[in-house]
Amino acid sequence: MDSMGSMTNDPSFEDVLAAAERIRGVVHRTPVMSSSAIDGIAGARLFFKCENLQKVGAFKARGAGNAVLALDEAAARRGVATHSSGNHAAALALAARTRGIAAHIVMPRTAPPVKRAAVEGYGARIRTCEPTLAAREEALAAVVATTGATFVHPYDEPLVIAGQGTAALELLTDVPELEAVMGPVGGGGLMSGTAIAVAGSRPEVAVWGAEPAAADDAFRSLRDGRRYPPLAPTSIADGLLTALSDRTFRILSARLAGILTVSETGIVRAMRLLWERMKLVVEPSGAVPLAAVLEHRERFAGRRVGLIISGGNVDLERLPW
Amino acid sequence: MDSMGSMTNDPSFEDVLAAAERIRGVVHRTPVMSSSAIDGIAGARLFFKCENLQKVGAFKARGAGNAVLALDEAAARRGVATHSSGNHAAALALAARTRGIAAHIVMPRTAPPVKRAAVEGYGARIRTCEPTLAAREEALAAVVATTGATFVHPYDEPLVIAGQGTAALELLTDVPELEAVMGPVGGGGLMSGTAIAVAGSRPEVAVWGAEPAAADDAFRSLRDGRRYPPLAPTSIADGLLTALSDRTFRILSARLAGILTVSETGIVRAMRLLWERMKLVVEPSGAVPLAAVLEHRERFAGRRVGLIISGGNVDLERLPW
Repeated sequence: MDSMGSMTNDPSFEDVLAAAERIRGVVHRTPVMSSSAIDGIAGARLFFKCENLQKVGAFKARGAGNAVLALDEAAARRGVATHSSGNHAAALALAARTRGIAAHIVMPRTAPPVKRAAVEGYGARIRTCEPTLAAREEALAAVVATTGATFVHPYDEPLVIAGQGTAALELLTDVPELEAVMGPVGGGGLMSGTAIAVAGSRPEVAVWGAEPAAADDAFRSLRDGRRYPPLAPTSIADGLLTALSDRTFRILSARLAGILTVSETGIVRAMRLLWERMKLVVEPSGAVPLAAVLEHRERFAGRRVGLIISGGNVDLERLPW
Repeated sequence: MDSMGSMTNDPSFEDVLAAAERIRGVVHRTPVMSSSAIDGIAGARLFFKCENLQKVGAFKARGAGNAVLALDEAAARRGVATHSSGNHAAALALAARTRGIAAHIVMPRTAPPVKRAAVEGYGARIRTCEPTLAAREEALAAVVATTGATFVHPYDEPLVIAGQGTAALELLTDVPELEAVMGPVGGGGLMSGTAIAVAGSRPEVAVWGAEPAAADDAFRSLRDGRRYPPLAPTSIADGLLTALSDRTFRILSARLAGILTVSETGIVRAMRLLWERMKLVVEPSGAVPLAAVLEHRERFAGRRVGLIISGGNVDLERLPW
């Protein structure tokens, strides 16, 4: 089964600029916020790019929006498809509805009803499958074969990566004197796009990834120069359990200053700080960069650091404190 | 014991403009946010003035800031005092620290330790008293007699009212085509200032108050033309349990389009919508205006309404769902 195929090479800075042009008005230009209380705790000047306030509550709206808007008319008429039970599914469903085309989402039958409802709320057609990788890929292949829909991978897709890079573009515009930018690493789409955006506009700014120590496959992959499979899901940061693809591994290896790992208690503490001090609902994955600043203080002491809060979709019935 | 005494008459629109000038740079110019999802549920265009993102997490930073900055040098040197265990105490403590003067806060010994810690964190001196009105007033009088500090009432004070009005001033500037503005009513300071600000700049805009039906003393006071005492505290919206003063009763009677009451379940539902759809941590009192729009749909159908989210200070261990 083919991926979009519209860009076979790694995305360039020009692709990020084109994505920014394409999705303008379709996604929010999210605010950058800061907190003198948290700055005091961190011993650094922190600027939070609030993608929890993005459409569908996550940066994923950017990549999915770019991929859907880049389709030619003939492809668009056949719709888009993906397998995901998370933010990418909702983002693709919303982008498809905005363009007036079909979205087919393959979801395991074990997906939480609330996530199913969110995707259905955006008008997508859900195909249920067994909760195995083989069943998921088979179901997706069947959808694509029947409908001719274009598969939009959650992160191993140049148009998606270019779209995710637009958040950093806005952050650098709003806070020009940044010394470093950091965001969470799951499949690597956000940080690949971020690294490309920073390299093209402010190459002197260091780009860091942040990852739970309990799901540190990206950290070990970059350290050892070889791609490791994802670990069994043990981190509260459930958006960061996927592994890098060949593409995101290649981009991050070439461009990141490094990946910093954080403890689970550090994630919960950082999440709670964001809720209490900034009054922002942030999902655990979105708090991982702040946790990294707090657990690696010496590296950022006195620096001006931009942190990407990746999303705010969290079950209010099951908070980790 | 005297109140500040610097303004014995009700505040004017010019006082609100002077307050805006005085507190510029000392408080945040909070953002106005909106949500197409919530607009769809409400059947109206809603613009949320996010005072939960204000310093100390509530609009109270405006009134306290204005009162403290308006003190002459001699009075300032003697400090300020108030009795409160809530947002006004934290706001006065922060304003005093910003000006480098003392703040004396009288608190009942039953106040939650977290609120005590917040006020102490801003450097205020806490005087503990028994949890009765008489003990509170006695303790405050003793502080004022000993120190010469100026008593800053949480809402029955023209400078405080003028300061609270600056939130509406910003809201009207950011969203010029509003048809109505609504905020919660407790002691009436916020909505007195709001009504004065709206009357002076956009008199054709209707100003509504919103109040829990379980604490509807302001609603009944305006309806019957006489001031009722506060009810026993039964509403989840714990910021709205105080009663109007003669002054705020007079201002609101003359200027409000009306007060709309809401159910407790409506408050919790509105609060949850703001958390889930807008990713904002909002305290129950701050969700009361949205609850009013949802429970009085016909009145706002298709209208452009500005809602003041009054604060975001909530105990994350004890959420109402």
